[in-house]
Amino acid sequence: MNVLVINSGSSSIKFRLFCMPEEILVLQGVAEKNSEGNTTFRISSQKEKTVKKWNGYSCKKILDAILKELVSPANECLSSLSEVDVVGHRMIHGGENGTGCVEITDSLVAEMQKLVSLAPLHYPTNLEGINATRKLIPDVFHAGVFDTAFHHTLPEKAFLYGIPFSWYQKHKIRKFGFHGTSHKYASQRASQIAGLDYQSSKIVSCHLGNGASVAAIKNGKSIDTSMGLTPVEGVLMGTRCGDIDAGVLIYLQQNFNLSNREVQQIINKESGLLGISGVSGDYRAVEKAAQEGNKAARTALAVYHYRIKKYFGAYAAAMGGLDLLAFTGGIGQNSANARKEICSDLEFLGVQLSEKQNTELNGTEAIIQQEKANVKIVIIPANEELMIAREVADLAKRKQKDRLS
Amino acid sequence: MNVLVINSGSSSIKFRLFCMPEEILVLQGVAEKNSEGNTTFRISSQKEKTVKKWNGYSCKKILDAILKELVSPANECLSSLSEVDVVGHRMIHGGENGTGCVEITDSLVAEMQKLVSLAPLHYPTNLEGINATRKLIPDVFHAGVFDTAFHHTLPEKAFLYGIPFSWYQKHKIRKFGFHGTSHKYASQRASQIAGLDYQSSKIVSCHLGNGASVAAIKNGKSIDTSMGLTPVEGVLMGTRCGDIDAGVLIYLQQNFNLSNREVQQIINKESGLLGISGVSGDYRAVEKAAQEGNKAARTALAVYHYRIKKYFGAYAAAMGGLDLLAFTGGIGQNSANARKEICSDLEFLGVQLSEKQNTELNGTEAIIQQEKANVKIVIIPANEELMIAREVADLAKRKQKDRLS
Repeated sequence: MNVLVINSGSSSIKFRLFCMPEEILVLQGVAEKNSEGNTTFRISSQKEKTVKKWNGYSCKKILDAILKELVSPANECLSSLSEVDVVGHRMIHGGENGTGCVEITDSLVAEMQKLVSLAPLHYPTNLEGINATRKLIPDVFHAGVFDTAFHHTLPEKAFLYGIPFSWYQKHKIRKFGFHGTSHKYASQRASQIAGLDYQSSKIVSCHLGNGASVAAIKNGKSIDTSMGLTPVEGVLMGTRCGDIDAGVLIYLQQNFNLSNREVQQIINKESGLLGISGVSGDYRAVEKAAQEGNKAARTALAVYHYRIKKYFGAYAAAMGGLDLLAFTGGIGQNSANARKEICSDLEFLGVQLSEKQNTELNGTEAIIQQEKANVKIVIIPANEELMIAREVADLAKRKQKDRLS
Repeated sequence: MNVLVINSGSSSIKFRLFCMPEEILVLQGVAEKNSEGNTTFRISSQKEKTVKKWNGYSCKKILDAILKELVSPANECLSSLSEVDVVGHRMIHGGENGTGCVEITDSLVAEMQKLVSLAPLHYPTNLEGINATRKLIPDVFHAGVFDTAFHHTLPEKAFLYGIPFSWYQKHKIRKFGFHGTSHKYASQRASQIAGLDYQSSKIVSCHLGNGASVAAIKNGKSIDTSMGLTPVEGVLMGTRCGDIDAGVLIYLQQNFNLSNREVQQIINKESGLLGISGVSGDYRAVEKAAQEGNKAARTALAVYHYRIKKYFGAYAAAMGGLDLLAFTGGIGQNSANARKEICSDLEFLGVQLSEKQNTELNGTEAIIQQEKANVKIVIIPANEELMIAREVADLAKRKQKDRLS
C-alpha cells in the first residue's frame, strides 16, 4: 500500500511516500519558504538528493511539484498518481472531538474551519494544503491525524486553566497541546529500543524544533504537555515566549499602549531565542554566537535549557517518577550540547547522560544514558510522518474491511 | 527595643508589637474588610482576645485604633507611643534595587510611587498605610522590607521572560516574585527545627494563603519562585488564575471583545479556586463543598494540588535535589488535606509524609515526614512580621552605631 503523507505547515510543506506495512520510505522532500519569501525544495529519493529553487512561495505550486516528483522516472517511484492508495495529512487542531485518525470529508473540513481561531497563525496554511491536495488527488482515500489528538487523554486537572469554568464549558478554552503525533512516535519508539514496556512506563518526551514542547506519557497515555490552547505556552521556542506571567501582557498593554495584535506579534514572532539573544530564532545560530562569546546568546541558551529541565522535574512529579527521556526534533536529535545542558544536575532523578554516547551518536537513533543509570535516555529522529502513515493505513484497512463485511 | 510591625495589605492591616531582641510578641491584631465593606478588628494581648467592629473601612481609622490599643491600660503594653523605638513595614515591591531592609524616607517613598504600576492592585493601599503610619508616629525610625527583596538573588535564567531582551533592559520587565519575607522566615525556621544547615540545603518553601507562591531556596538563597512581575503568575490561588497560556489572553480579547481591564479583572478577581469551583475563593469553603460532594469544588482542589506538586518537581530539578519542604500560610499550615494531596506520589523524590503527624500536628510548628524519609517536611506558622522585626531592629542598631562612631 502506497501512503503519501503531506505535512503542510505555516512556512513549509513536507511529504513522504511510504510503502506500507513494510514502512519503506520511498521518496521524501520538503519545500520551505526562505527569508526572502522564495521556495527551496529538497527531494531525497533512495538514490539521490536534489534541490530546486524558485521565486515566491505558493502552496498550490509546491503540491504540483511534489506530485510531479512522485511520478518522475528519475525517482523510480510511481508510474502514475493512481498508484497512491492513501493520502495522510497532519492536521493542526482537532478541538475536543479530534481524538484519533479520521477520514477527511467535506463536513470534517467544515468543522476544522470553525477551529481556525484556536491557531490563527498556523491553521489557515494547514487547511489550504489539505484542501489543495484533496483537489489534486481527488479519487483517493484522504485521512489525517490531529496534532492535538495524542493529548486527548489529559486529565481535567492538567487541561483546565485557572479561569472561570464557564470559559471551558461554553467555549472549550483549555489546554490541548500540540506535537502529539511526534510525541507518540518518539515515546513509543524510545520505549521499544530501550526495552521498556510502553504501557507501564513513565516517559518524558521532548520535541525540540523551531516550535518545542514537552509531554508526560504515563502507561502509554499523554497526561500533561507544555503547549496549551495555543502553541505559545510552555518551554522557550525559536520566536515564541513560552510560559510568561499573564500580568506581563496586561502590563504591556496598559503601560505601553500596545494592542492585543501587537502583543500577539511580539510573543509569537519576536520572542524566544530570538528575543533574548537578539541573534536568531535558530538554535544553531544562537549556539554558534554563544560559542563565539556573545553574552546575550549565552543567556538565551541558559533560559532555554533551564526551562526544559524544570519541565522534566514537573512531569516526573506529575507521573510519580521517571523511567525514560526521549529527545526528538531538529534540536532534540541534533544538538548534543542541548541534551547535555538539559540533563545536567538531574542525577537525583536517576538521569545520567553518557557524554561519549551523547556526542558520538548525535543525530542517530540511539541510547545515550550511562550504563547503570536508572533513567533511559534516547535520541529519536522525528518521524511523525511515519506515525501518520501507520495510522491512516490502518484506518484505510479497517474501512475496506467494513465495506467488504 | 519595642518594634511595631505594620503590614498594610489591600483589604487588611496587621500589626505586631515585639520586644526585641528577645522576640517577645507583646500585642498583635488584624483589621479586615468584610464582604459588606465594614471593618472587623481582632486584637490579642498576652491576656485576652477582643473583637471590635465598625462601619466602613479606612486605613487612617484602623491605624488610629491600632495606636490606641498600644497604649490602652487594659493591654498592659505601652504607657505612651514614645516607647515605640522602631516601626517596621512590609513593602510590596522594591523593583531591582529593593534588595534588603531599608530606612523609609521621603525619597524612598517617591521611588516606590514609581513602581505602583508593577502591582496596581496591591501597592496603592500598601503605600497609603506606610504614609499614614509615618504621619501618626513621626518621631521614630521607620524601616521596611520589600516583599520582593528575598528573591533578588534569582539568576538571570530564572528571572528573564522569553520576550525581547529590551523590555527587561529598558523597562525592567522580569520575574520579581513576592512573599519573600515569608519564604525567608519559613525556610530558615524549617531548616533550623529540622536540624539542617540552611547554607547548604535545598529547600522548597510553599506559602499557601489567599495569594500563594512556591520558592526554591538553595544554599540560603532564593533561586526561583512562582510569582512573577505580578502576583498573578504561578500556582492556582483564591481568585487569581496562576500560570496560563499567554495565547488564552489574546484569544479572549480577540474573540470575545474583552478589554485588557476586563481580562485583568477576570484573572485577578474571578479566577483561581473561585473560578473553577464557582463556590468561593476560600480554600476552606471549597474543601467543605468538595467533602459534601460538589464536583466543581473537587476539580478546583485537584487543579490546586496538582499545580503545586509540579512546582515541587520543577524546583527540585532547578536545585539538583530536595532536602526539605516547608509549608506555611493559612492553607499551608492549617490544611492537613492540602499537604497530604500535594505530597502524594512523590516517594521517588524522597517525600514521605507521616499521615499521623500531618493530622495531629496540623496548625503547629512541627516536623511531619516519616521517620526514615530523605526529605524533611515541616509546618511553619507564617510569621513574616517577626522576620521584619528582626531586620528593622538590626538596621536600627547599625544606624545607631554608625551615628555613635
